[in-house]
Amino acid sequence: MNMYDIIKKKRDGAPLAQDEINYFVEGYVAGRIPDYQVAALLMAIYYRGMTDKETAFLTYAIRDSGDVVDLSGIDGVVVDKHSSGGVGDKTTLVVAPIVAACGVKVAKMSGRGLGHTGGTIDKLESIRGFCTTIERARFVDIVNDIGIAVIGQSGNLAPADKKLYALRDVTATVDSLPLIVSSIMGKKLAAGADAIVLDVKVGSGAFMKSADAASDLARGMVRVGKKAGKKMVALITDMDRPLGNCIGNSLEVVEAVRTLEGNGPRDLEELSLELAANMLYLADRGDLPRCRLLAKDALASGAAKAKLVDMVRAQGGDVGYIYDTTHFATADYRRAVYAAQSGYIQRVDCEAYGLAAKTLGAGRNVKDEPIDYAAGIVLNRKTGDYVSAGDLIATLYSNRAATLPAAERALLAATQIGSAAPTPRNVVLGRVQ
Amino acid sequence: MNMYDIIKKKRDGAPLAQDEINYFVEGYVAGRIPDYQVAALLMAIYYRGMTDKETAFLTYAIRDSGDVVDLSGIDGVVVDKHSSGGVGDKTTLVVAPIVAACGVKVAKMSGRGLGHTGGTIDKLESIRGFCTTIERARFVDIVNDIGIAVIGQSGNLAPADKKLYALRDVTATVDSLPLIVSSIMGKKLAAGADAIVLDVKVGSGAFMKSADAASDLARGMVRVGKKAGKKMVALITDMDRPLGNCIGNSLEVVEAVRTLEGNGPRDLEELSLELAANMLYLADRGDLPRCRLLAKDALASGAAKAKLVDMVRAQGGDVGYIYDTTHFATADYRRAVYAAQSGYIQRVDCEAYGLAAKTLGAGRNVKDEPIDYAAGIVLNRKTGDYVSAGDLIATLYSNRAATLPAAERALLAATQIGSAAPTPRNVVLGRVQ
Repeated sequence: MNMYDIIKKKRDGAPLAQDEINYFVEGYVAGRIPDYQVAALLMAIYYRGMTDKETAFLTYAIRDSGDVVDLSGIDGVVVDKHSSGGVGDKTTLVVAPIVAACGVKVAKMSGRGLGHTGGTIDKLESIRGFCTTIERARFVDIVNDIGIAVIGQSGNLAPADKKLYALRDVTATVDSLPLIVSSIMGKKLAAGADAIVLDVKVGSGAFMKSADAASDLARGMVRVGKKAGKKMVALITDMDRPLGNCIGNSLEVVEAVRTLEGNGPRDLEELSLELAANMLYLADRGDLPRCRLLAKDALASGAAKAKLVDMVRAQGGDVGYIYDTTHFATADYRRAVYAAQSGYIQRVDCEAYGLAAKTLGAGRNVKDEPIDYAAGIVLNRKTGDYVSAGDLIATLYSNRAATLPAAERALLAATQIGSAAPTPRNVVLGRVQ
Repeated sequence: MNMYDIIKKKRDGAPLAQDEINYFVEGYVAGRIPDYQVAALLMAIYYRGMTDKETAFLTYAIRDSGDVVDLSGIDGVVVDKHSSGGVGDKTTLVVAPIVAACGVKVAKMSGRGLGHTGGTIDKLESIRGFCTTIERARFVDIVNDIGIAVIGQSGNLAPADKKLYALRDVTATVDSLPLIVSSIMGKKLAAGADAIVLDVKVGSGAFMKSADAASDLARGMVRVGKKAGKKMVALITDMDRPLGNCIGNSLEVVEAVRTLEGNGPRDLEELSLELAANMLYLADRGDLPRCRLLAKDALASGAAKAKLVDMVRAQGGDVGYIYDTTHFATADYRRAVYAAQSGYIQRVDCEAYGLAAKTLGAGRNVKDEPIDYAAGIVLNRKTGDYVSAGDLIATLYSNRAATLPAAERALLAATQIGSAAPTPRNVVLGRVQ
C-alpha cells in the first residue's frame, strides 16, 4: 500500500477501503506521509466525496488517532451535546444543568471560540477560578458525585483531526461534507459518551449557510454515530440571528444564569429546553413530550440553576458570580448603537455580528491570544422587531476604546431595516433521528 | 493576493488571471508557497482544467522561472524538435543531421531517459568522449560553424517545471492536459528556438495511450507555442511498437548511423524524414513535398551522415565510432529469445519492452544511476510479422547476467502471438499545424 495509489484511487472516483483510510491517517499523524500528498487527497475528496462507509472509516481513524475517553467509571447513561457553532450560543450553560438536574449524567468536553463563533470553555473561564483542565479521574469523580462537569478537550483527543483541520484550513478543503462529518464525529466519538444530541446550526451566523447543507450534515453525522453504536439525535436550528441577546463571554454567562432563573430570552430558553428534552429522551427518560415536561420542571423548580452552582463549585469557580452576576467585571468602554431609520429589522448578517464581537475583544485573531471576557454586544432589538429611528438597538462593550467605532459600523451595516415585517422563523427547524 | 484564494477560485471553476498564475509559480520556486498548497491547487486543476489562456500563462511562468536561452547569436532560423518520449526513439540522431545538411540550423537541448523511455543525451554519451555539457557561447559557435549541436538541458532552464513535476509525480496529478502542455512547452520556449516540431507519441509505449489524448496534447501545445510567437507543427506518431529494431543506448546509435547510411529500418527512416521535412518546412525551405525531397536527398547523398560526423567531432566525440560502429563495446552477456508458438505478432506491450531494456541496464531506477550503454534489446520480429515456433524474435544484451531471465520473461509476456494478422498501422498518424 502506498499514498500515491490511494490518491489516484480517490482521484478516479473509487471508494477507499478501511485499511487505506487507516494507512493515510496513521501515516499522516506519525509524520510518515507528507502534507502535500494529504493535501492532494483532501482536494480529491472535495470533488469526489465519500460514501457513508468511507466517512465512517475516516471518523473511526480520527477517533482512534489519540485517546478514546473511557467513561465506564460513570454510572448510568452519559449524554453529550454538540453544537456546530454559532453566535451567542450559550446553550451548554443552560442545557447541561437542566439534564443533570433530571438525574442524567453530563460529562462534557467543550471547545474554544473559532472564527466568528464563541466557545463554551472561554465562557466558563470568565468565571473567576473556574478550572477547565481537570485530569480524567477527577472529572469522572465529579460527574459521579454531582452529575455534571464541563472541561476542555484534552491535548491528545483526536490529534488527526487537529492536523487535518489545520491543513484543510489552508488548502480550501474545509467545505467538504464527509470531511466535516468525520472531523466533528471523530472528536465526539473519542469523547466517550453513550448518546449524543447534535445541534446543527443553519443561517448567516452558522458554518452551514443553507438548509440543505445543514440537513445533509445532520443526517451524515447521525448515520456515522449510529454505525459506531451511539444513540443519536440531531436538531437543525436557526442561526440567521444571534441566539439570545448577549454575545461575548461573561455577558453570555450572565444571560445563561438569567435563563436558568426563568428570565431568559425566549429563543434561548426554547432551544435549551428542546435540546435538554432530546438528551433526556436518548437517556430513556420517556417519550419526547414527557422529557420536555421533565426539562421544564427542572428549570422552573430552580434545580437546574442549583446544578450550575454545584458544577462551578466543584470545578473551583467562585459561586458568588452565579449567585450575583454583578460580580462580573464590566468593560471600561461602552457605546450605544442607535437605529438610523425606522422600520422592521428584516435580516441581520449574523456572522458579521460575531466578527464585530471579536473585534471588540470577545474572540481571538490568532491562536492562544488572551480574550477580553467583558467584551461583546448586548442586543436590544433583533430580527422581526420594529424600531424607530434613534432607538437603541445594541450596546457595545470593550476594554479597548479604539475598537468601538469599527464594531459599530460593522453592526449597523449588518442590520437591514425595511418597511415589511420579515416572516417569523422558528428556532428549531428540523430533527433527524 | 494570497494562495488560499487562488486555490479556492480554481476549486470553484473560475479561470485564474495571469498575475495569479505568476504569483503561485514565482512563490513556489522561491519557497514562499508551501508544497501542500500547490498540491491542492494541482489537484483542483486536474479536475477543473485550464482555459487556453490559463495554459499559456502557466507556460510563460514556467519559461520565465529560469534562464531563457538567447539564440540570436545564431544566423538564420533555428528549428527545434521535441518528442513526447517513446521506446527505441532515436530520431534526433537521424533528423538533426538531415536538417543541418539542408542548411537549417539545429541548436538542440535534449533530455535523459525517463521511466521506460530513453533519452538522446544518454545515447550520445555512449560515444567515447562526446560532451553534452557545453557552455552557451561555445554551443552557439558550434552551431554557427557546422550548423548542428545537441547538448543537455542547462541546470537553470525552467526550474519551476522541475519542482512542479516532482510534486505532480507524487500527488497523482501528472495526467492533466494543461499541466503536461505547460510543462513541455515551458521548457521548449525557454530553449530559444524560433520554430518547433513536436513528435507526440501515442500507443502502449507512449505516455499518451489514446489517440484522443495525443491529439488533444498536440493541439494544446501547438496553440500555446503559436501564442508565444513560435512557428509550430505537431506530428502524432505510432508508439504501439518500438521505433526501429534496437532499444538501448549504443545499440540505438548504431541503428541511427545505419539509417543515415540508407540501411535503417523502414519505420525509423520514414518518421525521421517526415520530422525533418516538417522542420525544413517551418524554416521556409518550401512546401512540404519539396521539403520531403530535400530531406531524402540529404540522406541519400551521405550529407546527413557527414553532419553527424561533424557534430561528434565538434563535441569532442571519437568519430571512429561513427565511421565503424564495431568500436562500440558489446555486452558481456546475451540471450536469444525464441517464439514459443507460431502465428502473427498481433500486438506488443511497448512500455514493457522499454522496462525490459531498463532491467537489462539501459535505463535508471533512481536519478544519477550509471547506465550500461551496451545493454538493451535487438528485435528480429515486430508487430505484424509472422513467426514460427522457435524463431528468434529478439536478442537481449547486458553486462549483468542476472538480469537476463527476468527481461526474457517480460519480453515474452509482452508479445502477443495469434493466428490473425493485425491491421497495419502507419508510423505517422496525424499532423497538427
